[in-house]
Amino acid sequence: MLQIVVFTLFEGMFHGILEESMLKRAQDTGLVRVDFVNFRDFAQDKHRTVDDYPFGGGAGMVLKPDPLIKAVESLPVLQAHQQERRFMMSPQGVPFSQPMAEELATLDRLVLVCGHYEGFDERIRPFIGAEEVSIGDFVLTGGEIPAMAIMDAVIRLLPGTLGNAESHVDDSFSTGLLEYPQYTRPASYRGHEVPAVLLSGDHAKVDAWRRAHALYRTFMRRPDLLDDATLTEADHRLIERFRSGDFSMIEVRDGFEHDIPE
Amino acid sequence: MLQIVVFTLFEGMFHGILEESMLKRAQDTGLVRVDFVNFRDFAQDKHRTVDDYPFGGGAGMVLKPDPLIKAVESLPVLQAHQQERRFMMSPQGVPFSQPMAEELATLDRLVLVCGHYEGFDERIRPFIGAEEVSIGDFVLTGGEIPAMAIMDAVIRLLPGTLGNAESHVDDSFSTGLLEYPQYTRPASYRGHEVPAVLLSGDHAKVDAWRRAHALYRTFMRRPDLLDDATLTEADHRLIERFRSGDFSMIEVRDGFEHDIPE
Repeated sequence: MLQIVVFTLFEGMFHGILEESMLKRAQDTGLVRVDFVNFRDFAQDKHRTVDDYPFGGGAGMVLKPDPLIKAVESLPVLQAHQQERRFMMSPQGVPFSQPMAEELATLDRLVLVCGHYEGFDERIRPFIGAEEVSIGDFVLTGGEIPAMAIMDAVIRLLPGTLGNAESHVDDSFSTGLLEYPQYTRPASYRGHEVPAVLLSGDHAKVDAWRRAHALYRTFMRRPDLLDDATLTEADHRLIERFRSGDFSMIEVRDGFEHDIPE
Repeated sequence: MLQIVVFTLFEGMFHGILEESMLKRAQDTGLVRVDFVNFRDFAQDKHRTVDDYPFGGGAGMVLKPDPLIKAVESLPVLQAHQQERRFMMSPQGVPFSQPMAEELATLDRLVLVCGHYEGFDERIRPFIGAEEVSIGDFVLTGGEIPAMAIMDAVIRLLPGTLGNAESHVDDSFSTGLLEYPQYTRPASYRGHEVPAVLLSGDHAKVDAWRRAHALYRTFMRRPDLLDDATLTEADHRLIERFRSGDFSMIEVRDGFEHDIPE
């Protein structure tokens, strides 16, 4: 069982997500246990202070070293064979990614430290042995929502969590590409038809259509992903045709056409 | 006042974040109003179905066109001068960013559509006039947590939300760089001292130290951000010194040294 320990001043922010949908089921079935530690409980002054003004001036407040370090030091020691990683949520961190989620899903304990205010005193990180991780190039009021994103991405990969074990094999990024367009009933909706090949029952044609459209979409929207994707010779030939401006095999354009690279 | 309308099957996931901290205050003070629409209420069959099997086969379920399109069509018409944007949460979308957050904070209405399961029928997007947006290259069980991230990033930028109006001028990404290291009391913690310049009271020296360390950190961790950052001549000279392997002016190394580019 994966144990996730969240260090936060705002445990209440997590109540909604843990009481709904997949995250609730995963806890109820014993696949994951989520514990919260309010590091304000480790502050030793009368006012239980966790933050203070930044040295050198500037707006906002900085999380003090002591309560948070003592809180993380209170974690039970793991057994020798148990694997753990610790992360501080920070816009300065390494971008979180699907391969990271896959790795974290194999741990015994995952520690997520949520800051608030202007950030952490720089001395905290080495004391608690944490890495910094970011969910994107934008600024939030705290680390709680990023911690939720990491929890959700990791927990859904635990064996037994998804109803269908194959369900995440086709996900975006699991293949290194964006996902192909999806359709469901009705086959015709207000005059807009599902592409005929998807109704054909010809699995090889369906697979080829999906691969071409996944490649097209990735080429148009996120060409940076193609560098790290696993591509076949046929994929490379298709991308070469895209590069030369030939999109004749692509049935579903998606409004990103203005992004065609030079 | 900004109105945010969230289309979701899991409104309960949002309860925690809206009842804590800045997001609660912003609603209480009338800076933002958040409304939820459960698009299951627009399903017309007995079982209130919102999803169905994908055409062409494969695991998972796809959100049907009808209930969601009808739900979004039920939005009140805006007045001519009012500005709106509509987003579907999708790993295939444009990456959400701080400049986007700044733009969305000026809207009258922001519509956030949260999928679940394997995604949306491709025909939904043109009917509802939405853009696709992503918070990162990882897969979640639904769009709710990404919608929370966007809400938090946007709402904290609304005038009057943060206690201190200057507080987000120094944020990561507001300058195009990662933020410099922050410190607060005590000046010495278990033998680890705050850099002396930050205690000096010399504002010009503090500013130079912070700029150099913001540049250093961005250079080491996220050199991709330097392309779009606004840099002075002095910044460029400092980066040249980093490129030549000269980090002598950098007092706070941060454990990312192994990432030094060739």
